[in-house]
Amino acid sequence: MKKRNHKVGAPPGTIVYSGQTRDERVKISLIEYNETDFIEKEFYDLSECMDHVQNGMVKWINVDGIHNAELIEAIGKRFNIHPLTLEDIVNPNQRAKFEDYENYVVSIMKMVTHENGATHSEQLAVVLMDGMVISFQEATGGDAFDYIRNRLRQGKGRIRKMGADYLAYALLDAVVDVYFSILEKIGDRIEVLEEDLMNEPTKATLQQLHQLKREMIYIRKAVWPMRELVNNMERSETELIKPSTDLYLRDVHDHSIRVIDTVETYRDLLSGMMDIYLSSVSNKMNEVMKVLTIITTVFVPVTFIAGVYGMNFEFMPELHSKWGYPLTWAVMIIIMGSLLIYFRKKKWL
Amino acid sequence: MKKRNHKVGAPPGTIVYSGQTRDERVKISLIEYNETDFIEKEFYDLSECMDHVQNGMVKWINVDGIHNAELIEAIGKRFNIHPLTLEDIVNPNQRAKFEDYENYVVSIMKMVTHENGATHSEQLAVVLMDGMVISFQEATGGDAFDYIRNRLRQGKGRIRKMGADYLAYALLDAVVDVYFSILEKIGDRIEVLEEDLMNEPTKATLQQLHQLKREMIYIRKAVWPMRELVNNMERSETELIKPSTDLYLRDVHDHSIRVIDTVETYRDLLSGMMDIYLSSVSNKMNEVMKVLTIITTVFVPVTFIAGVYGMNFEFMPELHSKWGYPLTWAVMIIIMGSLLIYFRKKKWL
Amino acid sequence: MKKRNHKVGAPPGTIVYSGQTRDERVKISLIEYNETDFIEKEFYDLSECMDHVQNGMVKWINVDGIHNAELIEAIGKRFNIHPLTLEDIVNPNQRAKFEDYENYVVSIMKMVTHENGATHSEQLAVVLMDGMVISFQEATGGDAFDYIRNRLRQGKGRIRKMGADYLAYALLDAVVDVYFSILEKIGDRIEVLEEDLMNEPTKATLQQLHQLKREMIYIRKAVWPMRELVNNMERSETELIKPSTDLYLRDVHDHSIRVIDTVETYRDLLSGMMDIYLSSVSNKMNEVMKVLTIITTVFVPVTFIAGVYGMNFEFMPELHSKWGYPLTWAVMIIIMGSLLIYFRKKKWL
Amino acid sequence: MKKRNHKVGAPPGTIVYSGQTRDERVKISLIEYNETDFIEKEFYDLSECMDHVQNGMVKWINVDGIHNAELIEAIGKRFNIHPLTLEDIVNPNQRAKFEDYENYVVSIMKMVTHENGATHSEQLAVVLMDGMVISFQEATGGDAFDYIRNRLRQGKGRIRKMGADYLAYALLDAVVDVYFSILEKIGDRIEVLEEDLMNEPTKATLQQLHQLKREMIYIRKAVWPMRELVNNMERSETELIKPSTDLYLRDVHDHSIRVIDTVETYRDLLSGMMDIYLSSVSNKMNEVMKVLTIITTVFVPVTFIAGVYGMNFEFMPELHSKWGYPLTWAVMIIIMGSLLIYFRKKKWL
Amino acid sequence: MKKRNHKVGAPPGTIVYSGQTRDERVKISLIEYNETDFIEKEFYDLSECMDHVQNGMVKWINVDGIHNAELIEAIGKRFNIHPLTLEDIVNPNQRAKFEDYENYVVSIMKMVTHENGATHSEQLAVVLMDGMVISFQEATGGDAFDYIRNRLRQGKGRIRKMGADYLAYALLDAVVDVYFSILEKIGDRIEVLEEDLMNEPTKATLQQLHQLKREMIYIRKAVWPMRELVNNMERSETELIKPSTDLYLRDVHDHSIRVIDTVETYRDLLSGMMDIYLSSVSNKMNEVMKVLTIITTVFVPVTFIAGVYGMNFEFMPELHSKWGYPLTWAVMIIIMGSLLIYFRKKKWL
Repeated sequence: MKKRNHKVGAPPGTIVYSGQTRDERVKISLIEYNETDFIEKEFYDLSECMDHVQNGMVKWINVDGIHNAELIEAIGKRFNIHPLTLEDIVNPNQRAKFEDYENYVVSIMKMVTHENGATHSEQLAVVLMDGMVISFQEATGGDAFDYIRNRLRQGKGRIRKMGADYLAYALLDAVVDVYFSILEKIGDRIEVLEEDLMNEPTKATLQQLHQLKREMIYIRKAVWPMRELVNNMERSETELIKPSTDLYLRDVHDHSIRVIDTVETYRDLLSGMMDIYLSSVSNKMNEVMKVLTIITTVFVPVTFIAGVYGMNFEFMPELHSKWGYPLTWAVMIIIMGSLLIYFRKKKWL
Repeated sequence: MKKRNHKVGAPPGTIVYSGQTRDERVKISLIEYNETDFIEKEFYDLSECMDHVQNGMVKWINVDGIHNAELIEAIGKRFNIHPLTLEDIVNPNQRAKFEDYENYVVSIMKMVTHENGATHSEQLAVVLMDGMVISFQEATGGDAFDYIRNRLRQGKGRIRKMGADYLAYALLDAVVDVYFSILEKIGDRIEVLEEDLMNEPTKATLQQLHQLKREMIYIRKAVWPMRELVNNMERSETELIKPSTDLYLRDVHDHSIRVIDTVETYRDLLSGMMDIYLSSVSNKMNEVMKVLTIITTVFVPVTFIAGVYGMNFEFMPELHSKWGYPLTWAVMIIIMGSLLIYFRKKKWL
Repeated sequence: MKKRNHKVGAPPGTIVYSGQTRDERVKISLIEYNETDFIEKEFYDLSECMDHVQNGMVKWINVDGIHNAELIEAIGKRFNIHPLTLEDIVNPNQRAKFEDYENYVVSIMKMVTHENGATHSEQLAVVLMDGMVISFQEATGGDAFDYIRNRLRQGKGRIRKMGADYLAYALLDAVVDVYFSILEKIGDRIEVLEEDLMNEPTKATLQQLHQLKREMIYIRKAVWPMRELVNNMERSETELIKPSTDLYLRDVHDHSIRVIDTVETYRDLLSGMMDIYLSSVSNKMNEVMKVLTIITTVFVPVTFIAGVYGMNFEFMPELHSKWGYPLTWAVMIIIMGSLLIYFRKKKWL
Repeated sequence: MKKRNHKVGAPPGTIVYSGQTRDERVKISLIEYNETDFIEKEFYDLSECMDHVQNGMVKWINVDGIHNAELIEAIGKRFNIHPLTLEDIVNPNQRAKFEDYENYVVSIMKMVTHENGATHSEQLAVVLMDGMVISFQEATGGDAFDYIRNRLRQGKGRIRKMGADYLAYALLDAVVDVYFSILEKIGDRIEVLEEDLMNEPTKATLQQLHQLKREMIYIRKAVWPMRELVNNMERSETELIKPSTDLYLRDVHDHSIRVIDTVETYRDLLSGMMDIYLSSVSNKMNEVMKVLTIITTVFVPVTFIAGVYGMNFEFMPELHSKWGYPLTWAVMIIIMGSLLIYFRKKKWL
Repeated sequence: MKKRNHKVGAPPGTIVYSGQTRDERVKISLIEYNETDFIEKEFYDLSECMDHVQNGMVKWINVDGIHNAELIEAIGKRFNIHPLTLEDIVNPNQRAKFEDYENYVVSIMKMVTHENGATHSEQLAVVLMDGMVISFQEATGGDAFDYIRNRLRQGKGRIRKMGADYLAYALLDAVVDVYFSILEKIGDRIEVLEEDLMNEPTKATLQQLHQLKREMIYIRKAVWPMRELVNNMERSETELIKPSTDLYLRDVHDHSIRVIDTVETYRDLLSGMMDIYLSSVSNKMNEVMKVLTIITTVFVPVTFIAGVYGMNFEFMPELHSKWGYPLTWAVMIIIMGSLLIYFRKKKWL
C-alpha cells in the first residue's frame, strides 16, 4: 500500500507510468453488446482492436495494465482524452475522483480484488464516452468484474438493454461491493481478537490489533473519496449519464456511505480494544505485584525472627529455655497466619 | 448485530434475501380503517389479501418477514415498487434512509424490540403510497406497533381521522420511542457501573464497560441516520405527505435529536469512566507497592543486623558482653520505629 | 439529572406528565401591566384567573407545575395551543427548542435555580402570544424571575413600556444569566482542585474531578441547544417578536455563546487535569519504587556477606583471624556507602 | 484571567461595571488630526473634552477605564450609543464581537499588553462613528497603541491621510500584533521545555507543561472570536467603513488566522510533549525496577546457600570437608556470574 | 521552522524584512520566451533588468532574496504592486494565501527544497500580471524550478506555447510536487520506525517518533492552506487566468488534497505507534517484574527454612536427627519445584 511518485519535476500531463515495475504485455479486451448481440475479443494491439469495433453497439474496452505508456497515449489520441487524464490514469497513486470533460467523464478509484487467497489493491480508471466505456486496470491479474461479464454474456437482467452509462455504474457498484466483503472479513478478525483480548492478551494480540488499525487507516483513505466520486457523478450535468441511471448511482452512493459507516464503527471498536489491552496489561502487572508482595511480606518478618535466634550472643536466655523453639515457631506461624488473613480481607488472595 | 452481505457480485436490483436463515411462513396482516370503520385480517398469500381490500379506506399492509423473495417481488409488481427499493427491503443491512420515488416514498430503518426479556434488532421498511402504508419487518416476532394497532381498533385520538401519511409517521414515532426506553435502561446500567468503579473495580467491571461502549457504538450507528431520514422526509416535496403531518414529523425529528444527544452524552460518560478505571488500577498497584515497600524496608535492615551477630568470627567482642543482646534488640526496635514514623510522615501509612 | 420517559407507546400529542411524582396544587400567577398600571394575583383555577384578565394590558400567566395534565389541557384549549406543544410542555425531558406556530411561538429550555444552597434543574416553557406570555415551570419552588417581577412592580427601566415579546426575552435572559453564576462556581471549584492536584492528589481529588467532568457533560448538553433556540427565535419570521426586540435577542445569543465557550474551556481544563492526575500517580509510584529499591539494594549484598560468615564450615580461615570481624564491617560499610553515592549520582536520593 | 459577572439578575442594558475594583480617575484623551494638523489633549471630564472638539478633523477619543459608569453613560447619551452596547463596554468579560448599529459600529475584544515585564489582559471596545473613533480600555495602564500615536504625531505614512475607519483598523491590527509577540515567547518556552523533557523531566517540567497548556486554552478562547470579529467587520454593509479600507481588514483577517494556526500548532506540540513526559516517567520506573531486580536476583540465591550452610544440623558432611568453604564460594560466584551474563544478554545492563 | 515577527507595532504596509539576517546580494533573473524565442539573463539591479525587457514575450522575473527592502519597494513601484502585498512578500512567516488585486494576483506559500542532503523551507511569492510572472524567493539558494527552466530552454512540451498564467501554475505544481517527495521519505522512516517498535523499542525510537510527529505538525500547517490557495485561485474571477488553465489548476488542487490525505494518514499511523510504544514499555516492565517475582518467591521461603535451622536454641530435636539435613533439603526442593510449576501454569515462565 506504499505510495511512489517518481514523476516529481516532470511537466504536467507527462504520461509516465510511476507504479511498480511490470513486464507483462498489456492486453486489451473488447466487449460489444446490444439487446440482441454480444461479441467478446482480446487483442494486444490498439489498431487491431479498433478494426473490430462495430457501430450501434455499446462498447467496453478493458485495458489490463497501465505500464505501457505508448499504448495509453495512443488510446488517448484515438479517443481524444486530455493529457491530464492520461497522466492520472498511468499514475497509480491517485485519490479517487470524478472528472467531467467535454466529450467524456472519468472516474478513478482503488479497486480491491481477491485472488489465490490474497488481497490486492490496484488502481482502476473508468472513462465513459458516448456509447463506450474504457476501463484501465493497473494490475494484469483478475478483477471484480467477472460477474458483470457473465451477466453480459448471458444477457439476463437489464444490463444488455441499458447504455454505456449503466455499464460504468455497474463497474463502480462491483468495486464498492468488494469493500463490503473485505470489511466482513475484518469484522470477523475483530471479533476473534476481542475474545483473545478478554481472555489472554499477548504481544501477538497487540501486533494484530495494530495491524488491523493500520488496515483501517488505509481502507478509510481509499473509501472516503469514493463517496465524493459517486456524489460528484450523480450531480454532474454531463449528458453522458441518463437520468434513468441516477437512481442506480444513488444506490451505489448509499452503499459507499454504508462502507464508510462500517469503517468508522470498526475504528471505534479497535480504539476501544487498545484501551482494553492496556488495562489488561496493567491488571496483569498488578497480579504479579500482589504475588510478590504477599510472599515477601509473609516471609520477611519471620525470617527476621529466625535471624535473631541465630545470633551468637553469649547471654540470650531464650536459647536455653526448653520452650524457646516451639514458642518461636508458634509466634512465626501466628504472624504468617495473620498476614494471610489480612491479605484475604484486602481481597488480594 | 453482525453485518452479512452475501449479495456481492449480484446485479443491482436483485431481490435476494441476505440475512439470517429463517423458515417461518411470511404472514401478511391487513388493517383497513376510516373514521367510522375498522377491519383487521391476516393472510399467507398476497392475492387473497388483495381480494379483501376495500376502496375508500386507509390500508396498512404489514409483511412479517422478508425472507420470501417471491412474495416481496409479487408485492413489488402489484404496487409498482422499483427493484432497487425491493433490493433494499430484502437486504437487512441497510443504513436508515428515506427515498422519494414517483408513486411512493420509502423509509428504511433499524427497529429495536423487547420480547421475553431480550432485545432484538430488525430492519423495518415503510412504503407510503396513496392511501396505503406497506411495512416490511425482517423478523417474524413482535414489533413496536401494538400500541398503534390498539389505538386504531379503539378509534380513540386522531389517528382514525388522519390519512396514510399520519400512519407512516406513527410507525416512525413508535420506532424512535423504543430507542428512548433502551437508552433509559443503559443509563441505569451506567449508573450502577459508575458506583462499582468508584468502590471496587474488577475485571468484570472493565468487561461491562467495554460491552456498554460497544453497544453505544452500534446504537449510534443506527440512530444517526434516523435523524437524516426524518429530516429528508420532512423536507421532501412529495404530495403523499400532507402539510398537516409536517408538524408531527418535526416532533419525531426532535425526538431523534434527543436520542442522539443522549447517546453522545453516554459516550462521553463512558470514556470518562474508562479513565477512572485506569487510574483506579494504578491506585491499587500503588497501594500494593506501598505495603511491599514498608514491610521490606522495615525488616531488611534489622535482618542484616541479626545476620551480623550470627557470624562465627572468633573475635567479636559484642558477643561476650552481657548487654549485647538487649542492646541489639533496642537498636533494632529503634530502627524499625523510626522507619515507621518516616512512612507515616510520608502518608504511606 | 436523570431522564425518564414513561410515555413510550402513547400516541403523539398525549398530554401525560412524565416527570417525578409531585403532589402540590398547581398555582397560577397572573401579572398584568402597561406603562401606568400593574396588577398581580394568584389563583388555583384557570377560569377564575380568566375572569380577572383585563384588556389593553400585557399579561404574564405563570403556571407553577406541569403535573396537572387537566389544567394544562384546559389552558391549551382556552388559548388554542397545539397538542404537540402541550405534550412537550408536560414532558420534562425536552431538548431546548424554539417552535413557531400560527398564533404563538414557544421556547422550551432547562432552567437552573438556586434555593436553600442547592441547585435544582427544571424545565421551563415560555409561550408568547399576542400581548401575553404564558410560562410553565416544572417545579413548584422558586425561579430565576424575582428580579423581573420586581422590575415590573417598581416600573423602573424600560420593561413596563415594552410588549410581551420583551417580557419573553427577559425570561430567557434571566435563564441564561443563571448559567453564568453556576459556571462561576464551577470555575472556583476547578481552581481549588488544580491546586490539590499539584500538591497532594488523593482518591477524593479523582472523584471530584470525575464529578466535575460529569457536571460539564450535563451542562453542555443543556446549553448547546439554548444557543440554537435563541438563534431560531432571532431569525423567526413571526410577527409576535417586534424588530426592536431583535437587538436584545442578539444580546442573549451572545451570552449563550459565552456560556458555551466557558463550558468548552472548562472541559479542556478538566481533561488536562486528568492527565496531571495520572502522571502524578505515576510519579508517586516511582518514588515508592525508589525507596524500596534503595533500601533493598543497600542491605541485600551486606546481608549476604553476613550470611557467608554465619556458615558453619570447619575450615574457614577468615573466622579465626583477629581482623576478620572489623575488616568485614569495613567491607560492608564501603559497599553500602558506594551504593548510596551511586544512587545520589543517579538523583534517586 | 478569571471571569466575574456580578450582573446576574440586573435588567439588560444596565450599565454597571462588573470587573475588578478600581479607584483611578478615568482619563479621556482626545486626538484630532487631518492631513495637515494634529491636536492631542487630556481631560477628566466629558463636557470639557467636548468643548475642545473641532470640526473637519478625525477625532480619536480614548477612555482609559470603564469603571466610571456615569461617565460611560454620559458618553453614550452624547453620542447616541445603544444601552446594550454600553452594557457590553462596561462588562469586561465579553467574547470578542463586532456589532453594527445604525449610527456606529462597535468591536469588542481582549487586548494583551506588556508592561514592566508582566503580561496584562484587558478588554478593549472600539466604537467607530462618522469621523470619530471612541476606544474604551478596561485598565488604566499602558496599551498597544503608542506606535499609532507616534505615527499620528509625526504624520508619516498614510494614516493622517485616511479617515476614522482606517484608525479603527489600525487599533485592531495593533491588538492582533501583540498576540504574535506573546506566541513567539511561548514558542521559546516550548522549545526549552522540549529539551528538558528529552533530558531530565522533573515534576517542575510537568507543571510548566500544564501551565503552558492552560495558557494556550485561554489564548485560544480569546483569539478564535477575533477572527469572526474581523470577518464580520469585513463583510459588514455599514457605510462607515470605506471600500478602500477593506484590503487592510483582509490583511488583519489573515493575521488573525495565522495567530489561530500557531495556537493550534502549539496545542498539538504540547499534547505530544505530554505523551513524551508520560513515557519518560514510565521509562524511569522501568530503570528503577531493573536495578532492583538485578540486585535482588543476584544476591537472593547465594544468600540462600549461605543460609543453608549456616544451619546447625549435626550431620552435615559438607561442613567437615576441607573443600566445602572454597567450593561454596565457587558455586556462589558462578551463580552470580551467570545471572549477570543473563541480564546483559537481556540488555538490562 | 521558527516564527519571527519583528514587525510588531510597525504600520501596515511597512516593507521591512523580518526573517533571518542575510548578507547575499539579491539576484534578479529574467527569462523571456514565446513559442519561438527564449532569452535568459541575470542582473543585480532592477533598472538594468528593465532595460532588457522586450515586448510580446512572456516574462518571468525571479527575485532571489527578499531581504533587500529597497529593491522590493522599487519593484513594487515599477509594477504597481500594493504595499500590503509587498509587506507580505518580505515577511517570511506568511500563511499560504491567494489574493486578487486589480492588476495582478499573488500567491504566497512555503516552498521546500532539497540541497546538499538537507531540507530547507523558504517562502515563495508568485505575482502574476499581464504577460509576466514575478517570483520572490526568501533564500538565495536553489529552488524547485530547475525542471521548469529546462523545459523553457528546450522548448519541449506545451509550456512555451502557453501564457504567463500557465507558468504561474507550473511553479505551484513544482512546489506541491516537492511535498510528495518529502512525504515519501517520511513514509520510509515511518516504516523503519514501525519495525523498530515491534522488535526493540528504545528511548531513541521514542525521540524519532516525537520528531516525526513534530515534522508532521509543521508540514500539515504548511500544506492545509495550500489547498485553499489553489482553490481560491481556481475560483477567482480574474481575467489573468485563462479558462484553459483552469483544468491544470484543478489538477494541482487534486495533488494538494492527496498531500493532505497522506499527511493525515501519517498522523494516524504515528499516533497508533505512540500507543504501541507505551504498551511495549509496559510489557517490558511486566517482564522485569515477573523475573523479580519468580526469583524472590522461589528463594524467600526456603531461605526462611534455612534461617530456622540456623537458630541456636538448645532444644531443637530436628538438629540431632540423622535425617534432618537431607529431609530439609528435600522439603526445600519440593517447595521450590512446586512454585516453579505454579509459575509455569500461570504462564510466567
